[in-house]
Amino acid sequence: MNVRGRFVTLEGGEGAGKSTHLQYIAAWLEQRGRIVVQTREPGGSPLAEAVRGIVLGDWAEGVNAQTELLLMFAARAAHVAYRIEPALIRGEDVICDRFVDASWAYQGAGRGIEAEHLVALEKLALQGVRPDLTIVFDLSPEIGLARAKNRGDANRFEEESMAFMSRVRAAYLERAKADPGRYAVIDASRPLVDVQIELARLLELRLA
Amino acid sequence: MNVRGRFVTLEGGEGAGKSTHLQYIAAWLEQRGRIVVQTREPGGSPLAEAVRGIVLGDWAEGVNAQTELLLMFAARAAHVAYRIEPALIRGEDVICDRFVDASWAYQGAGRGIEAEHLVALEKLALQGVRPDLTIVFDLSPEIGLARAKNRGDANRFEEESMAFMSRVRAAYLERAKADPGRYAVIDASRPLVDVQIELARLLELRLA
Repeated sequence: MNVRGRFVTLEGGEGAGKSTHLQYIAAWLEQRGRIVVQTREPGGSPLAEAVRGIVLGDWAEGVNAQTELLLMFAARAAHVAYRIEPALIRGEDVICDRFVDASWAYQGAGRGIEAEHLVALEKLALQGVRPDLTIVFDLSPEIGLARAKNRGDANRFEEESMAFMSRVRAAYLERAKADPGRYAVIDASRPLVDVQIELARLLELRLA
Repeated sequence: MNVRGRFVTLEGGEGAGKSTHLQYIAAWLEQRGRIVVQTREPGGSPLAEAVRGIVLGDWAEGVNAQTELLLMFAARAAHVAYRIEPALIRGEDVICDRFVDASWAYQGAGRGIEAEHLVALEKLALQGVRPDLTIVFDLSPEIGLARAKNRGDANRFEEESMAFMSRVRAAYLERAKADPGRYAVIDASRPLVDVQIELARLLELRLA
């Protein structure tokens, strides 16, 4: 019987370098003989990627907070059931760029959705699947948005106000503080090499 | 200031003739000088129609009950916010082919989603918008599925088992019985002209 794999989620605002860090973590794990599934949210399964297209799209009618929240959790329910959990059961490690903490930060703190709804949706969509480690790449919104703009792939979220992004950041830090056993916060404002040194230390401690 | 319009929803299993009855009700209301918005679920707004394509689609990975439920309510949240409520506020009548009762019947009774989730999602997605009249077109699953098959536009739901369809039917009847002020049940197994005579009587009573 396989030992269940580890589920690692990467969180943080725009421009925090999550995609690069995801590659780093995947390489680190694979060098240690692990099979790694790299994925992202919203998306990660064919159905969920189709939902991603809708939720990140520009709609003349707008996308209200309730619709956005429900689409995010619909995509997540498919992603958990058809990609994440099967991989963990096979004994593979899963690294995911954003997961449920992003809904607490963006739809909750960002758009003002009440906690009761997030609790209920989490219960429904996750079916008990929880990250073993969540790394928050922390960055001021000013630096993050400037970096994201340079990248030139702005979506609806990257056009949000500085106040919105500050609420998102505060929510991530608050969640991390409340559960240090699951979360780690890394200062992502520093040069990449310094972030990677800290990341390696963290992985050694938590995943070796 | 406009008087708020009336919100009428049509429910029932496959093959109950809802599309035809919707046309009849719209014509009846327009003859009485009403402006009528005809719509349907899942769908009814551009974003919601895109979600409809996903939720009714055939996915190799399948569509689990949680994902289906969340997609239905995501589409509904957009539909209510961007199409139904604005029309009601303008004083127009809205007739909708399926609405929230369909989730209680199909995802609840049909797929076994617990009531607590339906209550929570209803609160989140509807933002207080409720039908004034819900007409349940009642039909045995045997007759309904035979009719739907003749129509030749089967989707995932029309391929469900007879047991599933029986649970759906029972849920509709139970909901109608519990709130006769909002619901009316019409026997849809009879010839169309008889159904329309009863429908006219009902509309005269409830919407004239």
